[in-house]
Amino acid sequence: MITEILATGQEIITGTVIDSNSAHIAQELEETGLEVVRHSCVGDDLDALVSILQEIGGRSDIGIVTGGLGPTSDDITAEAAAKAAGVELALDTKAFNAIEALFKARRRFMSPSNKKQAMLPAGSECLHNPVGTAPGFCLKIEQCMFFFLPGVPHEMERMLADVVMPRIEKIQGIDKDVRIVKTIATFGLGEAVTGERLDGFAAEFPDLILGIRAKLPEIQVKLYGRNKDGDSLGQLMEKASAWVLEKLGRYVFSVDGNAMEVIVGELLGQNKATLAVAESCTGGLISHWLTNVPGSSDYFLFSGVTYSNDTKIKILGVSAETINRCGAVHEETVKEMAEGARRIVGATYGLATSGIAGPAGGSADKPVGTVCIGLATDSSAEAYRFHFPFGNRLMKKKIFAIAALDVLRHKLQSC
Amino acid sequence: MITEILATGQEIITGTVIDSNSAHIAQELEETGLEVVRHSCVGDDLDALVSILQEIGGRSDIGIVTGGLGPTSDDITAEAAAKAAGVELALDTKAFNAIEALFKARRRFMSPSNKKQAMLPAGSECLHNPVGTAPGFCLKIEQCMFFFLPGVPHEMERMLADVVMPRIEKIQGIDKDVRIVKTIATFGLGEAVTGERLDGFAAEFPDLILGIRAKLPEIQVKLYGRNKDGDSLGQLMEKASAWVLEKLGRYVFSVDGNAMEVIVGELLGQNKATLAVAESCTGGLISHWLTNVPGSSDYFLFSGVTYSNDTKIKILGVSAETINRCGAVHEETVKEMAEGARRIVGATYGLATSGIAGPAGGSADKPVGTVCIGLATDSSAEAYRFHFPFGNRLMKKKIFAIAALDVLRHKLQSC
Repeated sequence: MITEILATGQEIITGTVIDSNSAHIAQELEETGLEVVRHSCVGDDLDALVSILQEIGGRSDIGIVTGGLGPTSDDITAEAAAKAAGVELALDTKAFNAIEALFKARRRFMSPSNKKQAMLPAGSECLHNPVGTAPGFCLKIEQCMFFFLPGVPHEMERMLADVVMPRIEKIQGIDKDVRIVKTIATFGLGEAVTGERLDGFAAEFPDLILGIRAKLPEIQVKLYGRNKDGDSLGQLMEKASAWVLEKLGRYVFSVDGNAMEVIVGELLGQNKATLAVAESCTGGLISHWLTNVPGSSDYFLFSGVTYSNDTKIKILGVSAETINRCGAVHEETVKEMAEGARRIVGATYGLATSGIAGPAGGSADKPVGTVCIGLATDSSAEAYRFHFPFGNRLMKKKIFAIAALDVLRHKLQSC
Repeated sequence: MITEILATGQEIITGTVIDSNSAHIAQELEETGLEVVRHSCVGDDLDALVSILQEIGGRSDIGIVTGGLGPTSDDITAEAAAKAAGVELALDTKAFNAIEALFKARRRFMSPSNKKQAMLPAGSECLHNPVGTAPGFCLKIEQCMFFFLPGVPHEMERMLADVVMPRIEKIQGIDKDVRIVKTIATFGLGEAVTGERLDGFAAEFPDLILGIRAKLPEIQVKLYGRNKDGDSLGQLMEKASAWVLEKLGRYVFSVDGNAMEVIVGELLGQNKATLAVAESCTGGLISHWLTNVPGSSDYFLFSGVTYSNDTKIKILGVSAETINRCGAVHEETVKEMAEGARRIVGATYGLATSGIAGPAGGSADKPVGTVCIGLATDSSAEAYRFHFPFGNRLMKKKIFAIAALDVLRHKLQSC
């Protein structure tokens, strides 16, 4: 079944907002074996909306549309859908009651403009939104079954999972393809070199598709497989994954799509170890990543974001003599930062970063992009210096942060 | 001139990667007065690529395409462009020399697959990539001038600014529209209430378009204007912006598209004040945001990410008695956290968060989504408790973090 995704909204077409909904929907659809052939986006323009709904209606079997179901006057998706299907808008009692109940539960006043959200195309079926005021609906336009969902990501995600996916799986019936996507995440090799190491893949695994993607700071290797028999496909994917691992070795940090902070968290847990962090140039990003993982309080004890020399000395106990002699961005300094963070909370490991994220602050011997990473245990401290000449300030913070976690990963894996 | 944006790549069509390039390009194009009518995305499928290039070629004047110019075998955009235009691929010496020079400058080995990147459609013009190995190119297909750019965001952004936009402005000539987009960012009001407060906008400003967008945790109000006379449009936008500000009052934190951390940084600078942060539930995110702003080291002194009670006591000097009596998520505790962070580095302000980001850890009187925010100066400490019942763990961290910065913003603005 041919599937398309349509995002709507002036803020997306003008680029004020990045459309993350389409990616989420595509992943969910791909996992059920559906093939998404196109994503599109148009603005809050009635003619443009009607026209693209009819285009998709004429060439695809399933269409997922997000956005434009809100209470304000620029929310015109229901009107466009009605026009594309050649029907009128009508008050949907199920939708109206659901909106009213939600406001009651949240003890908030239901404003008149929320009533507009219950006006749906005649002949459509209301789709319940358990987490927001905008109900969705489904409607056939030409040959295509469309599902219309709100644009607020967490509402869309919940409705997609609870309401839309079960209906799509029913439409697919038993004839659906099994689809497996495997993500192998690496750090430290360039995109071209990664591609060359995997040169023989197509000859070795002609039934699979290989994708290599610079999702900086990671380089991701994606394996895409699709057939009618899940067992044989699963075995083939395992074999292909092992083949890739052998070619890329220690640069692979994750084979299950997990982020570096999840992998490091798992390794800390397996080693019954705890971590303290001292962040200068990464400015809290390592801590933010680590604490995005539920349960991280089991191993993540403390992070000191110490931007100035003064706080490195006062909070972490770095010696003023070391900073004066070597500077803030130096192996000796990050060793003392790592040891200080570790010592003051009694963690198994201390991890520290100090570097120059730019745009200012670089020099001839320490250009922007230089980072020193320190790692301390109760018996030793080690330090590394890298230079990453890519990206803006935020990208450099990300590269520095993943590089630091990668140093810890290698240490934990060699335990 | 009608403009479209096309993103290509298996990782985007399957949703593994969120397409942020199209939003960036749309913003740049909109600012020059061009109207972007559609974004599309297709995978690494030669037929799909050729077909959509021809569709766009037949209906638009300018097309910007990203992705698929890399060195690996799944990079097929140049081949598709050649096929859509009915020409062959040929080695472009300018492109080849640029790739060779880049590898030389980086002192890296040029791998054979990088040579593939210099094979461009006959009749196309190579566009220099100053920051990566993939050169771009421009090529006319049917009535439309296409610009093909790499998919790596920082390479695309640089080429768009340096190479593509000047060419597009030349094509536009003197007849181009002036386009102004204004973003007014708010925190604390819902989307529907915001819309109702602005109900009279269309009657008051019939020549402007109003958009309201839940870019959670913010609600953004966007004003879109377009005409031939920049001066009169600028005045109209100022008037409209003032009208919106009057309706939304203190909920507005930014009128120039700047993020909360930029606004707070500016206010700290204006007040010659410094800041120390104590983060529990936000886990480093406040610090990460603050340090994304270049020059933040002038006012951001220190953040202690203190997840456990133990570190709150040991690092920040919170009294064990307070934590035992009130718990970690409590007004009294965050006041002491804020005061502790402030005191140990001698900052003007101390800002602290403690809350329950979930998914676990909630209780009847402190459900998931509860956050306490403390703010200390050298003479006083205040604290607030909020409950935000929206979103997942990461969204809750974001809401908690922006709510904390908003408390500080109000304090700074009342100085």
